[in-house]
Amino acid sequence: MSTDKNKKSFKRANVKGKVNNFDSNKKKTYKKSNNNTQSKKSNSKKQSAKKPVEIIKKPPVRIAFLGGLNEIGKNLTLFECNDDIIILDCGMAFPDGDMLGVDLVIPDFTYIEQNKDRVKGIVITHAHEDHIGGLPYLLSKVNVPIYGTRLTVGLIENKLREHSLDRVNLHVVENGGHIKLGCFDVELIHVNHSIPDSVGVAIHSPAGTLVHTGDFKIDCTPMSGGMINLSRFAQLGDEGVLALMADSTNAARPGYTATEQTVADSFDTLFRRARHSRIIIATFASNISRVQQIINCAKKFDRKVAFSGRSMVNYMNVAKELGYLEVPDNIIIDIDALKDYPMEKIVLVTTGSQGEPMSALSRMAYSDHRKVSVGAGDFIIISANPIPGNERTVGNVVDELLKRGCEVVHESMYEVHVSGHACQEELKILHSLVKPKYFIPVHGEQKHLRKHMDLALSLGMKKQDIFIGDIGKMVELTDDSMKELAPVPSGKVFVDGLGVGDVGSIVLRDRKHLGQDGLIIIVASLDVYDGHVISGPDIVSRGFVYVRESEDLLEEIKQRALDILEDCAERNIHEWGVIKNKIKDDVAKLILQRTRRSPMILPILMEV
Amino acid sequence: MSTDKNKKSFKRANVKGKVNNFDSNKKKTYKKSNNNTQSKKSNSKKQSAKKPVEIIKKPPVRIAFLGGLNEIGKNLTLFECNDDIIILDCGMAFPDGDMLGVDLVIPDFTYIEQNKDRVKGIVITHAHEDHIGGLPYLLSKVNVPIYGTRLTVGLIENKLREHSLDRVNLHVVENGGHIKLGCFDVELIHVNHSIPDSVGVAIHSPAGTLVHTGDFKIDCTPMSGGMINLSRFAQLGDEGVLALMADSTNAARPGYTATEQTVADSFDTLFRRARHSRIIIATFASNISRVQQIINCAKKFDRKVAFSGRSMVNYMNVAKELGYLEVPDNIIIDIDALKDYPMEKIVLVTTGSQGEPMSALSRMAYSDHRKVSVGAGDFIIISANPIPGNERTVGNVVDELLKRGCEVVHESMYEVHVSGHACQEELKILHSLVKPKYFIPVHGEQKHLRKHMDLALSLGMKKQDIFIGDIGKMVELTDDSMKELAPVPSGKVFVDGLGVGDVGSIVLRDRKHLGQDGLIIIVASLDVYDGHVISGPDIVSRGFVYVRESEDLLEEIKQRALDILEDCAERNIHEWGVIKNKIKDDVAKLILQRTRRSPMILPILMEV
Repeated sequence: MSTDKNKKSFKRANVKGKVNNFDSNKKKTYKKSNNNTQSKKSNSKKQSAKKPVEIIKKPPVRIAFLGGLNEIGKNLTLFECNDDIIILDCGMAFPDGDMLGVDLVIPDFTYIEQNKDRVKGIVITHAHEDHIGGLPYLLSKVNVPIYGTRLTVGLIENKLREHSLDRVNLHVVENGGHIKLGCFDVELIHVNHSIPDSVGVAIHSPAGTLVHTGDFKIDCTPMSGGMINLSRFAQLGDEGVLALMADSTNAARPGYTATEQTVADSFDTLFRRARHSRIIIATFASNISRVQQIINCAKKFDRKVAFSGRSMVNYMNVAKELGYLEVPDNIIIDIDALKDYPMEKIVLVTTGSQGEPMSALSRMAYSDHRKVSVGAGDFIIISANPIPGNERTVGNVVDELLKRGCEVVHESMYEVHVSGHACQEELKILHSLVKPKYFIPVHGEQKHLRKHMDLALSLGMKKQDIFIGDIGKMVELTDDSMKELAPVPSGKVFVDGLGVGDVGSIVLRDRKHLGQDGLIIIVASLDVYDGHVISGPDIVSRGFVYVRESEDLLEEIKQRALDILEDCAERNIHEWGVIKNKIKDDVAKLILQRTRRSPMILPILMEV
Repeated sequence: MSTDKNKKSFKRANVKGKVNNFDSNKKKTYKKSNNNTQSKKSNSKKQSAKKPVEIIKKPPVRIAFLGGLNEIGKNLTLFECNDDIIILDCGMAFPDGDMLGVDLVIPDFTYIEQNKDRVKGIVITHAHEDHIGGLPYLLSKVNVPIYGTRLTVGLIENKLREHSLDRVNLHVVENGGHIKLGCFDVELIHVNHSIPDSVGVAIHSPAGTLVHTGDFKIDCTPMSGGMINLSRFAQLGDEGVLALMADSTNAARPGYTATEQTVADSFDTLFRRARHSRIIIATFASNISRVQQIINCAKKFDRKVAFSGRSMVNYMNVAKELGYLEVPDNIIIDIDALKDYPMEKIVLVTTGSQGEPMSALSRMAYSDHRKVSVGAGDFIIISANPIPGNERTVGNVVDELLKRGCEVVHESMYEVHVSGHACQEELKILHSLVKPKYFIPVHGEQKHLRKHMDLALSLGMKKQDIFIGDIGKMVELTDDSMKELAPVPSGKVFVDGLGVGDVGSIVLRDRKHLGQDGLIIIVASLDVYDGHVISGPDIVSRGFVYVRESEDLLEEIKQRALDILEDCAERNIHEWGVIKNKIKDDVAKLILQRTRRSPMILPILMEV
C-alpha cells in the first residue's frame, strides 16, 4: 500500500500561495489561526452579540450547501467559522431535458458575492466538471485563491485558459498536505476515484474536525496513485471527528465497487477477441486511469493509439505533461496517421461514451466524422455506464454502429467499466473508521441521501445526528448541537452561450411552448386615426403544421383576425392590449377546435 | 398445466365473422383455402408471369415489416401469399425526445392502402398499445375485420369507442382457435405476457407454417390463464415450421424472467412492513394480473382498493366486465371515498409508473392531484421498470415523493416487478421446440435483434437462414430460399392532436430551433411606392432572453434592421426575399457575436 504523499516532491512555477506540507502520518493537533486579527475581532463581537451570558469554549462551525444536494452535479459546499469562509469545490451540472437550449447549470453565487471579503480560498477535491466547472463563472465575480493537487490544478489551469482567465491564484498542494485558510486548516487526504490525484479533506476548525470525502471509492489495486489513505481516516476517527460528509452517489448499491483491475482483465480478453479488427474505445476524457489501461493493453498487443475528440486530446495532453499518463515511445499516433497502419494495429480512444450528439463516437455512428468511418471490421467498446437520462441516446448510438456492421460491447456483463464511487460496503467501512458525531450525506439526489442515511442508521447512528440537507440550507454545528439556520440564497443559474443567468423560467416556458406547438404570428397595420386595417392581417407560422396542408385553416385564422380588428375599430376599441387578447383568445379557440393543438399566438399590430 | 382453450366457452354479440374453432391438440394438416377464386386466378397469373418454365409446387410467402424492427413499439407485420394479405398487430410507439410536441407515432399505412382489396383481416396478439394503438388510424382508412381473443377485443372495442369508431368488424376468437383468412389459416396459441389472453400465432399458409410469438415469456405459475401452450409449439416444430419470428425485447438478458408469483411474495412482505401506512402502488394500467395480485393481497390484509388515473379505471372496468379480474364483494371503493377509511385500510392503485408528467402519481408527487395528497404515512410501491428513456422522469418523481416524507420502494432488489418478455434461456427453449427453417428476430432495436441472432447461431442455426430486417423490408420465403425483395413504403407518421402526418421533419426542425433558442421577430411597414419605412421596425422576442436584460441588444437589432431597410430603399432594392435575407443574415451575425446564440429570426414586412 502506497499513498501519493510518498511520491517524489516537485516544484511548479505557479505555486504562489502559502502551502504547508506536513507529514500526514504524524499525529497533528489543531492549531488555531492567529494571523487574522480583523476576523478575530468581528468574530468575538458577533459571538458576544449572540450569546451574551454564556462562556463559550469553541465557536460553532456553519456549513452551507450551494449545490450537490438533491441533484447530481454542481457540487459546492461552504464552511464558515469565526468570520472566515472557505469553499469546497465549485462544479457545474448538465441541463435536464426540460432546460431547453441551456448549455450548463451553475450554482447561484449570490451568497459568496455578498460575503466575498470573508472568503479565504477554494479547495478543489478533483478535476471533474461537477467539481470545477463553475470556477470560471465564480472567478469572473470574485478573485479567490484556489488550491488542489497537481493534476487538479493542471486541469483547472487548462480550463481557465479556455475562458481567457489566466491571472488567477492557483496553488498546487501535495496530496497529504495542509492549507491554512483563516482559522481553517484543510488537510488533503488521498482517495480513489475515476481520475487520479483525487482527495477528500479533513477540515480542522476551531469548532472541531470536519471530514468531507469528495467523490471516492476504496480500491486496493488502482491503476495509479495507490490505495485510498484509509489509515489517515482511521486516525482522524480516533482523534475525534465532529461531522462527516460523504459521497452518496452509490449509496443505493449493495456490495462494493469492483477494482479498476477488473477492467484491465476485460480489456485483455477483448483485445484478444478483436485481434483482426480495429478497436475503438469510448470513455470519459477525464478517466485518465482508463486511458492508461488502454495504452498498456495496446502496448502488449502491439497496437498504436490515437485520440479523437477535443476534450480527450486536451485531457491527455495535460495528463502526459504532468506525468499522470505513462506513454511508451512511439505508441501515440495522430488521428490523421490512421490510414498509414493496418486496422488491426490500431486502438482509437474517443469521447462520446454518453451518446452526446456532437461527440466523436456519435459522429462516427451517423457517418458524420471527418476522419473516421466505421463499419464491419470495427470492434467498439463503450467503457462507461450511461448517466441516468442518457440511456436512450447511448442506445441509439449503439444501434447505429451495429447497423453499420460494427461489433459493439457495451453491456455491464463485460466489465469494461467500474464506477468511481463507493457502494454500501465501502461506505460502511468509511463510516466505521471516521466515527463522526454528526453525519451529512452529500453528492446525490434525495433517494441517494436517504439510502445513505439508512446506512448510517444501520451502523448505530441516531436520526437526530443526521442532517438531510438541500441547496440553500445552512447548518450550525457545535460539540453538542446541530441546528438548521436561516437559508442562504441558492438556485440553478443557466448558462446559454455567453449569457449567464439571463435565461430564466419565463424564457424556458416560452421555449417549451414554442418547441411543443410552434407559433402563429398575426400581423396587421392599423390606421393611426380610426383603427381600421390598412394592411394585413398576414399570418406567419413556424413549427405548427405544413403550410401547404393547412391553407384553409390559415385563411380562416386570417378572416377571424380581420373580423375582430374591424369590429374593434367600429366599436371604437383602441386599447391594443384588449384587441390583442381578443385575437389571441379567439384564434386559440379556433385552432384548438380544429387541430387540438395550442401553438403560441402572437398578434403584432402596427400603426401607420 | 392448463391453457385457455379449456376455459368455458362463451358467446358475444359482436362475433360476426367466420371463426372456426379446432381443437389445437389434434394434429392439423394444412388445408388450402379455395373459397376465393379471384385471388387464385390472379395468383396463378402472377406466378406464371414470374417463373414461366418452372413447375411450382408451393407458392412463396412474403413477409413485410411496417413497424417493430429497429424500434420499440408500433408493431405491424404483413403476410402475403397468393394474392391474400393478412396483418398481424397494428401498434403505436411513443415519441422520442426529439419529436417535439408529437403525441404518438404510428406506422406508414401506404402499402396497406395501396393493397386494401387484398387485405383479408387483422389479427391482434394482445391489447397493449404497441400492438393495438395504430388501429383507430388504420381503420379510418381501410375497413378490415379484426380478430383477437376476448379480452383483446374488449379492450380494442373500448379504444375504438373513444375514437368514435364503432361500426367495425370485431371478432372474438377462442384462445387456441383458428381464423380462415383467404389462403391463410391463423391459429392462436396461448402465451404468457404481462396482460391476460395474449397469444402467439401459427400462420398456416400454402407456403408452409410461420410461427410468430407476439410478446411472450414462459411462466409456469402465472396469475391467470395458465402456462404458455409450449406443447403446441412443440407439435408445430415436429410438423415442420418454415419460419419463426420471435420477441427480441429481452434477448440481451441472460437467464430467465422470474414468475409473476415472485411479485405476489414481495407484495406480501411489503404489505406486512407497511401495516401502519396507506399503500399506493403504481403500475401499468394494462397489467391486469398485477392488479389482481394487489386485490388478492388487499383482501388478505383487509384493505379497500381504489383506482386512480383514467386509463387505470378504464382497463379495470373492461377487465372486470369480461371476467378477467376477480374482485371480492365490497373491496373496491371510489377514490372519493378514501377519506371515509383510515390510511392503513387503503390500497390506492395508480397510473404513472413511468413518471409521465400528467399521470396520477406525478400529480401526487408534485402536490397537483385534486383528490390525493401524499406525505409521511404513505408507502409507495412502483411496480414497473422504467422504459429506456424514462429513467430520469421516474427518478425525479421518486425524489419528490421522498422529499414529502413518503417511503418509496422502486428498486429491482425488491422484486415488485417482473418483465413480460422472455430472457435468453426461455428464448432457447422456444427455438429448440419450434425448430424453424428460417428465423427472423422481431420486436426490438438493432441491439436486441443482433443478440437474438447470436442466440440462434449458438443453437446451431446458419447465418444465411437468419434475416435481420428493418421497417419497409420485405422478405420472400420458400422451402429452399429466403430472399429480400424490393422495399415497401414505410416510416414514422406523427400524430399531434387531431393531425395525422401533418407534422413532418421541417415542422419538427422548426420546433427544435424555436425550443432551443427562441425567436426574434422584426416587423416593419414599408411605403408601397418607395419602400421607405413608415412604421417600425418593431422587435418582438420570445424564448430568447429576458427583455429587460437585453434592452440594449434589442435596440441595436432595431437600428440594424432600420439601416438595412432604408439602405435597400435608397438603392431601389424592392425584392422582399432579398431584403428579408439581408436582415436575417446581418441580425443573426450580430446576435451570435453578442450572445453566442442562434434564435430563429423572422423578418415580416408589410406594404402600406
